[in-house]
Formats: sequence, structure tokens, C-alpha cells
Amino acid sequence: MKVVKFGGSSLASGKQVEKVFQIVVSDPKRKIVVVSAPGKRSPEDEKVTDLLIECARLCLQNKNPQEKLNTVIERYAAIAQELNLSEEIINDILQDLQTRLTADKRNPDKFMDLVKASGEDNNAKLVAAFFRQQGVEAHYVNPKEAGLFVSDEPGNAQVLPESYDKLFSLRERSGIIIFPGFFGYSKEGEVFTFSRSGSDITGSILANGLKAELYENFTDVDAVYSVNPFIINSPKEIKELTYREMRELSYAGFTVLHDEALVPAFRAGIPVHIKNTNNPNAPGTKIVYERDNTNGPVIGIASDKGFCSIYVSKYLMNREIGFGRRLLAILESYGLSYEHTPSGIDDISIILRENQFTPGMEEEIVDRIKTELDSDEVVIEHSLALIMVVGEGMRHNIGTTARASKALAKANVNIEMINQGSSEVSMMFGVKEIDEKRAVQALYEEFFAAVAV
Amino acid sequence: MKVVKFGGSSLASGKQVEKVFQIVVSDPKRKIVVVSAPGKRSPEDEKVTDLLIECARLCLQNKNPQEKLNTVIERYAAIAQELNLSEEIINDILQDLQTRLTADKRNPDKFMDLVKASGEDNNAKLVAAFFRQQGVEAHYVNPKEAGLFVSDEPGNAQVLPESYDKLFSLRERSGIIIFPGFFGYSKEGEVFTFSRSGSDITGSILANGLKAELYENFTDVDAVYSVNPFIINSPKEIKELTYREMRELSYAGFTVLHDEALVPAFRAGIPVHIKNTNNPNAPGTKIVYERDNTNGPVIGIASDKGFCSIYVSKYLMNREIGFGRRLLAILESYGLSYEHTPSGIDDISIILRENQFTPGMEEEIVDRIKTELDSDEVVIEHSLALIMVVGEGMRHNIGTTARASKALAKANVNIEMINQGSSEVSMMFGVKEIDEKRAVQALYEEFFAAVAV
Repeated sequence: MKVVKFGGSSLASGKQVEKVFQIVVSDPKRKIVVVSAPGKRSPEDEKVTDLLIECARLCLQNKNPQEKLNTVIERYAAIAQELNLSEEIINDILQDLQTRLTADKRNPDKFMDLVKASGEDNNAKLVAAFFRQQGVEAHYVNPKEAGLFVSDEPGNAQVLPESYDKLFSLRERSGIIIFPGFFGYSKEGEVFTFSRSGSDITGSILANGLKAELYENFTDVDAVYSVNPFIINSPKEIKELTYREMRELSYAGFTVLHDEALVPAFRAGIPVHIKNTNNPNAPGTKIVYERDNTNGPVIGIASDKGFCSIYVSKYLMNREIGFGRRLLAILESYGLSYEHTPSGIDDISIILRENQFTPGMEEEIVDRIKTELDSDEVVIEHSLALIMVVGEGMRHNIGTTARASKALAKANVNIEMINQGSSEVSMMFGVKEIDEKRAVQALYEEFFAAVAV
Repeated sequence: MKVVKFGGSSLASGKQVEKVFQIVVSDPKRKIVVVSAPGKRSPEDEKVTDLLIECARLCLQNKNPQEKLNTVIERYAAIAQELNLSEEIINDILQDLQTRLTADKRNPDKFMDLVKASGEDNNAKLVAAFFRQQGVEAHYVNPKEAGLFVSDEPGNAQVLPESYDKLFSLRERSGIIIFPGFFGYSKEGEVFTFSRSGSDITGSILANGLKAELYENFTDVDAVYSVNPFIINSPKEIKELTYREMRELSYAGFTVLHDEALVPAFRAGIPVHIKNTNNPNAPGTKIVYERDNTNGPVIGIASDKGFCSIYVSKYLMNREIGFGRRLLAILESYGLSYEHTPSGIDDISIILRENQFTPGMEEEIVDRIKTELDSDEVVIEHSLALIMVVGEGMRHNIGTTARASKALAKANVNIEMINQGSSEVSMMFGVKEIDEKRAVQALYEEFFAAVAV
């Protein structure tokens, strides 16, 4: 039995929903179908979820949401019309939305979640109706009825452990189950959504709860690329990678799958298969527990800009027990999260995303580190990029570091920082932002260009 | 004006004291002479300081210290005899020691400091007597009289800032000043010693207080070596290095000079010259603020065994603000100091010296990290060696990392860890202990073998 999830672009139009139907019925093991809200039909289009957020916001500001509401209804209507569905389904959706928009607004965050969740919920009903029209037994199942319970954190709900056992009984239902992604219910019966792109999470939770053999995640790319296609033209596709590799690559928002979404599948050891709705015969990318390390030590390269480094030096620092802990406590008091802390004998640097600073915060932090920790020198360096070189094969591969650093030297890139040694499947280089592209190209050339696909 | 300090082996016998005399009088700028207690004459010999510690310990245990006391007196007597000094000086020393051994023992640590400090104190008197016998104006100066005041921390005294101004007036005294190293006086007039090898600290404090042009530190080696001579046969000597390089090299207890000792000279910008009492014409090693970066990017390689790594992994760790701080707080609660904390996206390793663990502590720490931080995995890896590659020239030298890691790969050494990016003058590699020697040899070969001396 397989859990299959379709993203917003896979359900953006009637034509796309037809593809989804063909994909589902082509494999009788595809029993559970998790759907997102309709996404963009073209780069200029709006996602239904964004329109719903706008509706909710207008209501909260006591403004008239009618225009936005019409746009939402028109999206569903366009799909229904393309699929020759009866008007009834659109009336149901309109009624549902009107009810939601008149709900209690005393807690704005909860109200927002209730409205946002309708995008998936109504789309699941629509998709189920289309499957039935095609003569296939298909049922919309509501998360409350199925037992998908979550914590009461608006926009960031966490699945409650007891859900998994309850969801298992979905196996006994007949026909194909069409399940809305993105939200669950609190114990009090209220709607709470996962973080954005949370339909991936719903699919992963269902795969875990139902003990599926596979979690198929259909999106609009053929595969996970080995490197950002904006940096390298048509880079190599990754056929298979481990959960750990996927997680390390996600460092820079690089992957097609929501980070948290891997957790439930990972804990249950269920492989995740990323495939393309628009090209279902492409092999896609499979995320697994273990894999053969053929084709070289490196599987992918991720990179991102926008980091800075807070350099702190103090003579005899390494004799001072508690220095590092007190330094981190200062950052924590500003709610800052950091990435790495490379250190010398008398100095330490904290690498963090620079967009976390609010005006004046930088100066205040420098000042506090100087005075409270009696530091000799505190300097902030901006505009750094981090590059992650990822692969299970590097674990005990002597010479990978040498190859990587030699490639960077040849490309005339100065390595500002190296972090290697904790994760066995990645190696991190810090470079100046202006060197990022050249650095990634050099590393790709070194580890991929010569490798057979 | 120069401050000159002589170590224990430079004063271990009459013949050595004669060398010291020749060195001092050969340069009229050598006005302040700081002396250690007599050291070892041969590898099997005992240092006077060790004998004194044993004396004090016996007294504290209400045992008879006479035998050890005799050995101490015999050491001074042998030197005095070799130098044809009168018996008077030995009687003075005996009387001084007997007075100290009958002092108040209610605070054993203070009593220990009082006895230990006699090694330097009495040796300064003896050396001054010899200088005078040679017809040179020389005066023993007591630290209390000179104004060298310290905190009341037995065995770990810290100089009080007001001392520097007081010491400046020593410049006005006539003749050569023979000053005992290793100790000062509290504001209450009691003796407190610096940490072990603290005569280096005394010399550095005097150099700062007197605004000396140079602090000469005479010991028994020709120079600081670029690498441990037990690993490489007759390694290249370092002619000049910066304070920062010296400090990074001292990482592994590699240097000939006490770590803390550099601080006062460093703060006053006074160069430190390490020279050999037994070969005073050798150029020695000069520690300076800045130097020319000729002869390649690397100036030295230090290494040490006996480290371990505590590996902690937790899925989505990098989203958890405060994780690192709480992890370090656990280690701090055991008084453990750590060296580095390389990190991946979902994992962090803490590198520390494994001799800090007491029985049972390891298991307890692993358990606390697992439960208190809800970690997925906690593993301690033992028997690691750290290798520091040091040089101001690496700061912006593209390719140094590539050369180092390539050399290690060629020597078939797996790099367990790299820490580079905070200190601009060093790069650290972690390897398995069994690979340490091969790794250092490979790095030496790469950075030194081809470089002209």
C-alpha cells in the first residue's frame, strides 16, 4: 500500500487533476491520496492558499473580502468546469467558505488557520468527486474523522503521537481515500495547520500511521538535482539518496521536500519517492535509509548566501571554562539561532544568518560580548556564503577534502572557514558571497563532471 | 635595558652559573636578571623545587623532612663550592629554610607556597653573591621590596595591576639586580607563587613594569622548533614568530615558554627572545608583534594525543535555539573544558581532553545529554590526536588547505575533523592517534622540506 501526495501545481487545473487521476489508478497500491490546495498555473498566477490568507486578513481588519473570495471560488469553478463536474460541488465550497469567514475571530491566529485549511479541505472534496465521476470508488476523509490530532499551535501544529495508531484503521476502508493535507484537529476539535507546505507533512504522517510500503511525493520537477540549476545548467539528477543526505542538502532551502515532512517517514523507515506529475515515467528521486555509494563520494552540493560571522578573541580563552556557553547565552537572549562555531585556541566565531538582526542589535551584541565577557576583540564580518558538500560516500573516503579544497584553490576561491567532523556525510566551506558561484561550479566540476550518469 | 631570565637547567650547577655570569656581563643592557631554582643536572637528577615540595608535604604530614632538606642544602652547597663562595651563604639558606618549615601550617596551600618559593629566593641570593665575588655590583632584590604584589591564590597567583608602576622604579637602582622568579607577595605580606614554571611570568612582568626593550628568556634549547623533534629528526628552527603563532603552537604543550608568561610582555609590546644558555651565540627564537611572511605560509606544526569527541545528533537540531548552550552547560557542570565544537546541520561534536573524565563520568554525561536534551544519538569516540598547522602567512594564502589535505591524503591519513575559520593563523586537523605521527611527517614534508632555511 502506498501513500501518494500531490502538490499545488499538480492540482492547479482540471488538466492537472486528470493527470493525478491517471497516476493514481495506474497502480492499485495507491490507496491514500493526499492533496494540496490548487497552486499556480503559471509563474504570474496566485496560489489559492495565498488568496485565502488575504481573505482572512481582510476579515480580521473588518474589510470586505468578497473580491478575493470570488477569485478563490473562480479557481475551483474553473477546475470543476474543465472536469465537467456538477455545480453542486462549487456551491458546497462557497457555503463552506462563507461559514468559515463568519467564524469567531477573537483569536486571529486560529481564525487564520481555519480559513487557510479550507484550500486543501475543499480541494480534497473536489478531487474525490472527480474520481467518482470517473467510475472509481473514492472517498473524501476528514482528518478529524480519521483521527489526525495535533497540538494547538496555530501555523505550527505538531502531530500528537496517538494519531498514528488511529490512522492505521484507514487501511480497512474500501476504495481510494482522498485526504486533505496541511492541517489536523486539536483535542478540542479545532483546526490547526502545519507550517507552510505542510501537505508534505500530512503525507508523511499517513505513511507512518498506515505503515505504507512507500510514500510517493508528486511535484513538478523530475528529481532532486545534485546542485542548484541556477548555478549549473542541467545538473545531474539524484536517483537515490539517504534521509541524512537529503537533510544536509536541505540546509540552503535547496530541496523540493519540506524538512519536517521527512521525520514521520524517517522514523518508520518508509522510503520517500519524489516524482513529477507532469512526467510520471521519469525515475524521480528516492530517499532511503541506506544506499550503495557508487559514482563517487559526493551526491550533492548546496549553497546559500546571507551569512555573517561574529569573531571574538580573548587571550587564554581556552582556559576559561564557560566562555562558549556564556557567549551563546548572549545570542540566545536575542532569539538568534546560529549555524556553526569554528574556534581557534584564543578565538571563536559564530556563523549565523544576518537577516536575523534588527537595527541596532549588532552594535548592542558586539558591546555586550566585549564588556560582559571581557573580550579583546569582537568583529562582525558580513556577506558570507556557506557551501555544503554532501555524500554518505565521504565518510571514510580519504582525499575528499583534498579534492574539494584543491578545486577551490584552482578556482582562486579563498576558504574563509571549514567545518568538518561532526556530520559524517557533509563538509562545509565558508566563502565570500562574491565567490559562491565560482566555488560551487569548481566543486561540481571536480565531483560530477567526470562521473558517468 | 633588557630583562634576562634564566631557567632551572641554566642554574643547576656552578659551571652553569658561571655561564650565566658571562652572558649577563657581556651586554651592559642586561640589568635585571630573573632566576629560577636550580634544576636538573642530568635526566635522573631532581629539581630543587620538587625536593622542596616533598619537604613541605612531609611537614604537613607531621613527618621528618630532614633527609629531603639535607638534599636541598647539598644542592646549594655543591654550587657554592664549585664557585668558591664562602660557607656563610649556605648557612643563611639553611636558616631561611628552617624558619619556613616551622611556619604556620593551618592553611596547607599557603605553607606549600612559602616553602616552594624558597628555591628561587635563595638561589637569587646565591647568584648575587657570586656576581659580587666576581667584582660586579649586583644586588638581590626581594619581590616585596620591589613592589611585586599578587592575588592571594596559592599556586596560581595573579599579578596585581599596581605592581607595574611600582616595579618601574627598579630602573633607578645601581648595579645588576638579581630577582627571584616564581612568586610575589599579597597585600598582607604573604608569599604566593605563580603556576608552575612561573619564573617565566616574573620575567615578563618585570619586562612590562620596567618598559624593557627586550625580554630575554634563557633556557636549554637553541630555538623553538617548527615541529616536535621526537617526530621529525632535527626539524627546522624558528627564527622569528609572532605572539599569536607562539600561542597557537603552545596548544599541545609544544613550546619552551610558559603560556601565561607571554601576556605581560605581549600587552606592553616587548619582544621576547628565547636563547640557549649553553650556546648563547645561536640566534635563538624571537617572539614579536609582526614579522615578514617569507619562506611559505606555515611556521610550525604542533600536535597532541589524548582527545576524545562527544558526538550528539538530533533531527532538526539547527531549529532549536539554545541547544548548543544547554549542551555546553552540562559539560560545564562537570568542570570540563573543551577545545572545539564542529557541527553539522543536525549534529554537533565536542572535542575535549579525555584525561578530564573521572570514572563513571562519561556514562553519566552521555545519559544526561540523551535525556535532558532529548537527543537521538550520543557517542563518545576516544584516542584522537589534534594537529595544529600554524602561520601568519596562511591568512589569505589560497591553497594552503588544499596542500595540507592533499599531503594527508597521500599519507593515507583520514581526516576525522577540520576546524578552520576563526583563528586566521592556524588550521586544525583531527586524526586518529595511530595516524598522528604519519600525519605530522606528511605536513612537515609538504611545508618545510622544500623551503630554504
